[in-house]
Amino acid sequence: MKLYDCAVAPNPRRARMFIAEKGLDIPKVEVDILGGENLKESFLAINPRGLLPVLELDDGTRFDEAMAICRYLEELYPEPPLLGTTPVERAQIECLQRKMEFDGMIATSEVFRNQPDNESFCYRSLPGAGDTPAIPGLIDRGKKSLDRFFYWLEKFLDGNEFITGDRFTMVDITAVCAVDFAKWVDITIPDKNTNSLRWYEEVSARPSAKA
Amino acid sequence: MKLYDCAVAPNPRRARMFIAEKGLDIPKVEVDILGGENLKESFLAINPRGLLPVLELDDGTRFDEAMAICRYLEELYPEPPLLGTTPVERAQIECLQRKMEFDGMIATSEVFRNQPDNESFCYRSLPGAGDTPAIPGLIDRGKKSLDRFFYWLEKFLDGNEFITGDRFTMVDITAVCAVDFAKWVDITIPDKNTNSLRWYEEVSARPSAKA
Repeated sequence: MKLYDCAVAPNPRRARMFIAEKGLDIPKVEVDILGGENLKESFLAINPRGLLPVLELDDGTRFDEAMAICRYLEELYPEPPLLGTTPVERAQIECLQRKMEFDGMIATSEVFRNQPDNESFCYRSLPGAGDTPAIPGLIDRGKKSLDRFFYWLEKFLDGNEFITGDRFTMVDITAVCAVDFAKWVDITIPDKNTNSLRWYEEVSARPSAKA
Repeated sequence: MKLYDCAVAPNPRRARMFIAEKGLDIPKVEVDILGGENLKESFLAINPRGLLPVLELDDGTRFDEAMAICRYLEELYPEPPLLGTTPVERAQIECLQRKMEFDGMIATSEVFRNQPDNESFCYRSLPGAGDTPAIPGLIDRGKKSLDRFFYWLEKFLDGNEFITGDRFTMVDITAVCAVDFAKWVDITIPDKNTNSLRWYEEVSARPSAKA
């Protein structure tokens, strides 16, 4: 197995944190997104969409979605469970993971990519291959989604150590990656969100957060 | 169990098709999205995001994401398998499902919701609760994603009865719901895409397509 990765990018970080939490050692191949390496022919041969992360199995099978990679690894290495231990828990985690992904990760991506002065990304309004000019209206829409993200993060953490309760899960991984990504556009956890600030400090101190 | 549903909406249709393919009979509660019922207090008490579908269990537990609903039902009722039968298959299906969802369903939603003359949705650039004015630039971006959706759909179906091979799966459900949704914005499978046209006719003839 190997992971096509990009050290600075928020989405591959989700897979790296997951792998680290599982205690797995999967070789990584660094792809330089900021330099556009993911859009060159050599990488498009691996993933025609130009997206990272990609997990490649020894037989050449590839998975090009972070959640699919994580779910595959969870099946092979169930301990510690990061996607739930019962059908109900797994469904709840999927619902919350999606909220953190859409209102956190994707919203930040819209704010970041659509800034008219963001030269590296000015024709990459969507992640991956394909020219799509910046759409400045998405900056405001993304910020509204981030307001909602922070609101719900604070609510979920009220009385809970982690977002889904007393166990660290994939939901925390997606959320902390979103919080750190939002810093790229100068958006941070509001000072009054004390549950979120406590959680952020705790989750950021886990060894996997540096993976 | 009951399903909060909306007969005309494309996303709840994914859950309905899945339920029908499983041969399950789950009572439905109709919520009128076009009339804005999903944004009224009575429904926001059920799902604060105002989104459908929602599956409610007998103990009141709710899942508010179509894929989480489907995954939960797949665990309870494994036959016929719609999400894969091995870890590799499940990961492959998740990757393809996401492609169909992002480039098909979500792209169409962006085209549909952001038309400046779409009065019902002119302040609902994103699905669910929250005012976000239409962003006309998303119409072009969505159409480009739909070009990619149709391109890949045709490629995947080359030599395959269904998108992932010889078995009907969730990927086909999301894709056919996206194709029918795209008709709302007058975008249809290109005439030259003969694999896709053959597949569309076949999938549309399944009883679940009318669920």
